[in-house]
Amino acid sequence: MSVFTRVTEAELSAWLADYSLGHLVALQGIESGIENTNYFVTTTNGRFVLTLFEKLSAAELPYYLDLMAHLARHGIPSPAPVANRHNRFLGELNGKPACIVSRLAGASLTRPDAAECAAVGAMLAQMHLAGQSFPQAMRNARGPEWRRMACGKLKPFISAEDCALLETEIAFHEAHTLAHLPQGVVHADLFRDNVLFEGSRIGGLIDFYFACNDALLYDVAITVNDWCVDADGALDAMRTRAFLAAYAEARSFAEVERQMWPVALRAAALRFWISRMYDLHLPRESEMGNTHDPEQFKRILQHHIAADGAAIGI
Amino acid sequence: MSVFTRVTEAELSAWLADYSLGHLVALQGIESGIENTNYFVTTTNGRFVLTLFEKLSAAELPYYLDLMAHLARHGIPSPAPVANRHNRFLGELNGKPACIVSRLAGASLTRPDAAECAAVGAMLAQMHLAGQSFPQAMRNARGPEWRRMACGKLKPFISAEDCALLETEIAFHEAHTLAHLPQGVVHADLFRDNVLFEGSRIGGLIDFYFACNDALLYDVAITVNDWCVDADGALDAMRTRAFLAAYAEARSFAEVERQMWPVALRAAALRFWISRMYDLHLPRESEMGNTHDPEQFKRILQHHIAADGAAIGI
Repeated sequence: MSVFTRVTEAELSAWLADYSLGHLVALQGIESGIENTNYFVTTTNGRFVLTLFEKLSAAELPYYLDLMAHLARHGIPSPAPVANRHNRFLGELNGKPACIVSRLAGASLTRPDAAECAAVGAMLAQMHLAGQSFPQAMRNARGPEWRRMACGKLKPFISAEDCALLETEIAFHEAHTLAHLPQGVVHADLFRDNVLFEGSRIGGLIDFYFACNDALLYDVAITVNDWCVDADGALDAMRTRAFLAAYAEARSFAEVERQMWPVALRAAALRFWISRMYDLHLPRESEMGNTHDPEQFKRILQHHIAADGAAIGI
Repeated sequence: MSVFTRVTEAELSAWLADYSLGHLVALQGIESGIENTNYFVTTTNGRFVLTLFEKLSAAELPYYLDLMAHLARHGIPSPAPVANRHNRFLGELNGKPACIVSRLAGASLTRPDAAECAAVGAMLAQMHLAGQSFPQAMRNARGPEWRRMACGKLKPFISAEDCALLETEIAFHEAHTLAHLPQGVVHADLFRDNVLFEGSRIGGLIDFYFACNDALLYDVAITVNDWCVDADGALDAMRTRAFLAAYAEARSFAEVERQMWPVALRAAALRFWISRMYDLHLPRESEMGNTHDPEQFKRILQHHIAADGAAIGI
């Protein structure tokens, strides 16, 4: 259940009087998602998504909204925030910061093939290139400090074996950082449920609320770890090669990125192994019942460690 | 024929390397339009329109491109210009200023009914409201000075009767200006061929290259004169009332606008009567064969004059 804050048609119609979107035609709560309240909104001007922010504050939000607007302005199919009569993206509705964005076409895939992975790789590279001219910056809230903090809190809940793996891996990444790689705006959560396909074409990249500035290669690794692994957590060679070749055609990898690719894959797997254990053992009340299995990312991490640098290369 | 400047697939692919739009999939010249060269462009990111500006200079273009971006940002279905890697809308292609904009869905109507006129009225009001926060300004290049200039050049070509009507009408509008009415951004050419309908919904407003700052009521009159007249040039009461009621629901008319409505209808008809005579008698080479009949607007003007202020009121 993810409609935390109810919005009635009358409330939304009154709120929309400050926009140039015409009349409200339909309003429907969206049940997926665990961070915010979302509604599908149809007006006489088109189809939109209304978001009420349950955790992010009005001070944090401009980065995300301005980023989505920047990417949309560059032709990336990201949700385009709609400005109100005061020319602002961010409003307030029922006591929560709120915005309305364009609704993108398509549906997410569960079993992508190599061609679809190539489309995602190409689009991720385009997003990285378009992000280079975005003037704002946001540090990664799931970076090295967060890893250490989360590890400390997890210790009472996890096995000695997992604890040892976690400690070793965190130490490894502190010794082998990605800080010297090409940096930029990263989506940082471009999993299969955040990409909408319309036939063979990508109709939308959604959910930019983990976006931040970090190593571009880290974003590639996060995305590959979801799109290109098989059921037991190993990289599928065909999908991985298709993804990376399509990415590299739009943005060439630097030599230092080639060298650090196996490390990036491990760092990306570690980040989601930690956050999934955290959500499992230290859930926020609103996230009950929505947690994902941490074991999948432990397996991915172990495969990457076992490959010992012999990952499918870029 | 309106592809004045040829663009090959190879030239466009090279030009698109400065954008984040993915690969070129298809390129097709658009044969309608008399001012610019336009192509439909499909890339892996979606469907776009490429425009090479044949007459407008790079100095004049930011107003139009920024206006379209502003309106799109407010949820008005106007073409959204795409920014390049340097974060700019305007580029240069084959020696011409050029831009690429989103391609909107739908097709234009030739015989709109009252409901469709109401949709256009409501959308025009939304556009006027969204335009209020647009910070740039552009004078109307088809305003009072242009009327006088064009009238002088037309005299050798038109009948004594038409000349007398023209002189009288120009003098009337010099004595009854719209300058004291609420002002803002006006489309100034929202004829049936510039509105795309997707079923009963407006999918797009296009061709903003006559947009400028002027009396909002003048824009209403221009639009009504095309959407709500019958074959002999008289206002159709049902369509006119539907249009005006829908407009007023989104933006109420001021009392001074109600009083000046019959004048605005005449001013709007006069502007197109003049420009059509001008295009007929003093054509630019590129416009040969694309001229519209001036008589239609002479008839509309004469109907408004005959009504003597008793127009279908707002």
